[in-house]
Amino acid sequence: MSGNSDERTGGALPGIGMSVGRLEAFSDGVLAIVITLLILEIKVPTGHEGTLGSALAAQWPQYAAFLLSFLIVGIIWLNHHATINLLQRTDHTVQVLNLLLLLPVTVLPWPTALLAEYTHKGTPGDQRVAVLVYGATSTAMALSFNVLWRYILRHPELQKPQVTDELLAVRNRRYNLGLAVYPVATAIGLVSVPVFLVLMLALAFVYLLPTPDVRA
Amino acid sequence: MSGNSDERTGGALPGIGMSVGRLEAFSDGVLAIVITLLILEIKVPTGHEGTLGSALAAQWPQYAAFLLSFLIVGIIWLNHHATINLLQRTDHTVQVLNLLLLLPVTVLPWPTALLAEYTHKGTPGDQRVAVLVYGATSTAMALSFNVLWRYILRHPELQKPQVTDELLAVRNRRYNLGLAVYPVATAIGLVSVPVFLVLMLALAFVYLLPTPDVRA
Amino acid sequence: MSGNSDERTGGALPGIGMSVGRLEAFSDGVLAIVITLLILEIKVPTGHEGTLGSALAAQWPQYAAFLLSFLIVGIIWLNHHATINLLQRTDHTVQVLNLLLLLPVTVLPWPTALLAEYTHKGTPGDQRVAVLVYGATSTAMALSFNVLWRYILRHPELQKPQVTDELLAVRNRRYNLGLAVYPVATAIGLVSVPVFLVLMLALAFVYLLPTPDVRA
Amino acid sequence: MSGNSDERTGGALPGIGMSVGRLEAFSDGVLAIVITLLILEIKVPTGHEGTLGSALAAQWPQYAAFLLSFLIVGIIWLNHHATINLLQRTDHTVQVLNLLLLLPVTVLPWPTALLAEYTHKGTPGDQRVAVLVYGATSTAMALSFNVLWRYILRHPELQKPQVTDELLAVRNRRYNLGLAVYPVATAIGLVSVPVFLVLMLALAFVYLLPTPDVRA
Repeated sequence: MSGNSDERTGGALPGIGMSVGRLEAFSDGVLAIVITLLILEIKVPTGHEGTLGSALAAQWPQYAAFLLSFLIVGIIWLNHHATINLLQRTDHTVQVLNLLLLLPVTVLPWPTALLAEYTHKGTPGDQRVAVLVYGATSTAMALSFNVLWRYILRHPELQKPQVTDELLAVRNRRYNLGLAVYPVATAIGLVSVPVFLVLMLALAFVYLLPTPDVRA
Repeated sequence: MSGNSDERTGGALPGIGMSVGRLEAFSDGVLAIVITLLILEIKVPTGHEGTLGSALAAQWPQYAAFLLSFLIVGIIWLNHHATINLLQRTDHTVQVLNLLLLLPVTVLPWPTALLAEYTHKGTPGDQRVAVLVYGATSTAMALSFNVLWRYILRHPELQKPQVTDELLAVRNRRYNLGLAVYPVATAIGLVSVPVFLVLMLALAFVYLLPTPDVRA
Repeated sequence: MSGNSDERTGGALPGIGMSVGRLEAFSDGVLAIVITLLILEIKVPTGHEGTLGSALAAQWPQYAAFLLSFLIVGIIWLNHHATINLLQRTDHTVQVLNLLLLLPVTVLPWPTALLAEYTHKGTPGDQRVAVLVYGATSTAMALSFNVLWRYILRHPELQKPQVTDELLAVRNRRYNLGLAVYPVATAIGLVSVPVFLVLMLALAFVYLLPTPDVRA
Repeated sequence: MSGNSDERTGGALPGIGMSVGRLEAFSDGVLAIVITLLILEIKVPTGHEGTLGSALAAQWPQYAAFLLSFLIVGIIWLNHHATINLLQRTDHTVQVLNLLLLLPVTVLPWPTALLAEYTHKGTPGDQRVAVLVYGATSTAMALSFNVLWRYILRHPELQKPQVTDELLAVRNRRYNLGLAVYPVATAIGLVSVPVFLVLMLALAFVYLLPTPDVRA
């Protein structure tokens, strides 16, 4: 996939190891599909009482859960891109850790539907379970991302020559912080599904705001 | 993803900023999935009275809504391609604005199903709601595309050196015009769903006709 | 997407026209998604009488229709790849004709489900309608492919310099022949859905056999 | 898709044969979609008795089947990547054999759903049928991968110049072993669906462990 594939490969022989290009292409595919499948969970109201307008308005938890998961996948894509772009080649461990990061990502549409369904439904206990499943999935995503990140951090031979210690240190602080965000938000969000949705959406918007000092 | 990735990157360090190639690959993935998922909303008739032929004919709003959304996603892809192709590198804002453009694009299968469902069904008020939701989604698409376009227009340092002011001016006029198309068609289309479908389809076909003077 | 993108572009300015790489990436995405979505139409039997084995065996038209559409999309991918690979650059018309080729491709899962459903069901007239809809979709695919092919044939300025008249003539004969295959198979297949499935599957397998003389 | 596409092509004329890049892009697309579609088979419990927590716990066969298929597709992707990366060009047979490998891959979501459904349901005979269908699909995947591998092994003119006989011999031993794994696991797994799931999951985890001596 790359004009300079020989420089990007690992293994004993140049040009036939695991290339960064295909790891990116496969991951981009998975992330693009997950972010697009989310809409399939939002149904067209049929057989409702009252107007279509009020039926659509009553579905607001579905829109909020959709938007949240869209933003979370978008943020993972930005971070994934920024991380893989530091690599000049990969190895078997990077490929397996990347696969383990994609696992909670592909799972996400399911807790998204669970959260939307149980905003208005079930006992307070059921609603806490829905928040916990969503929180656990997003935490697993942040955790597996950090495992991949730390492996790359400890293997300078995989990094492009122009990667500096300063850049790695800035990113490391940011990703360590990111690790705490989802568990804390989940703990607070156990109060109720709407509180959880608002809190998580606010965090996602904050992340997407331009903060030139920490972006490389 | 590119042989000359170093020239296409942003940030303080060459080769490790955000690349144009992965932004294109991710966006192509999302657009390709949306355009392909649309067919899942068209069902095989079962349990109908009369012949299969007449049952299929009665589904015409589903085909019209499918075709309209197919063309709208196709047009967005053409415009997205033409715009991103002007860039030699990206920054965090371009990536976030691109994500915000993909948001209404991934939503589109849902208003498409809504429009098809409420052509024959519901009160005139319900039908107007379906037209409004579809119109709002397509307008959000045009709007977020224009926000991305204007950001690129104001940041010549992101553009390839061969991009000329004439080219930007021609495209700018076209995209400004495009901004008005969906709200106006939606306002007229409030009369009825079939009028909306015919009007929007006509506009999409006009766009796809070859007009050599405005294509660069 | 390409190291030599400047040579592959059209328009007045080098490097900012429509690139072959993104046309391929988008088309590959659509074709890969269609070929993978087909399986979603095959359901897990529940609530059946008798053994699971006999319930699965009774679903044979679903497997045959799945296999046929898988092979047809695979063949379209091979032909699309072989054709687009002749181009050094594209223009607006190529992009629009490519979009019109992708239209019947994305439609295919729907006639596939229709064909599987009406093998055992409905009147003979209904079964003929299912064959006709499938035949019309595959014919539209062959037809739109040929429109794209003929446009490329008549625009040598879009072709790579190493493309020879002999190669174009060999391919042209093959694609002209391909144009007749689906309408003729559909006409014969109007006898019954199983005859149509067997005939179309046989044709697809013949195409995939190695025939070194006509492959470039 | 590649800066050095001329070196990667087959056929009589340089640069217009079948490129490795598009074969990879199409296969990556299919593998990424299959691995992401799997989650659609896991439903949100509605209308259950008792708590949401217990309803979710009762769905464990769905999670196990999902995880197994996720890992199997991930492993196929790793092997596919490692194999195609040895090629400097392709021919018609490689493209067709690659398509035949993608066939059981796209089928996989269906036996996955079958296995999850029949863990708790049906007679012991039905459960054996579900295991057999899953086992047959994964065996077909390993078999078609080996057919592709052996074809590449016997055609050194398709391989990159730096591919050595030692590397091919190491990989050949590994892939021959892989051929036996799924049929043996299926035979043992006929005892019960849970035994089959545990055994297959254990094999997948073993594969993903780092074994530096056999990775090139």
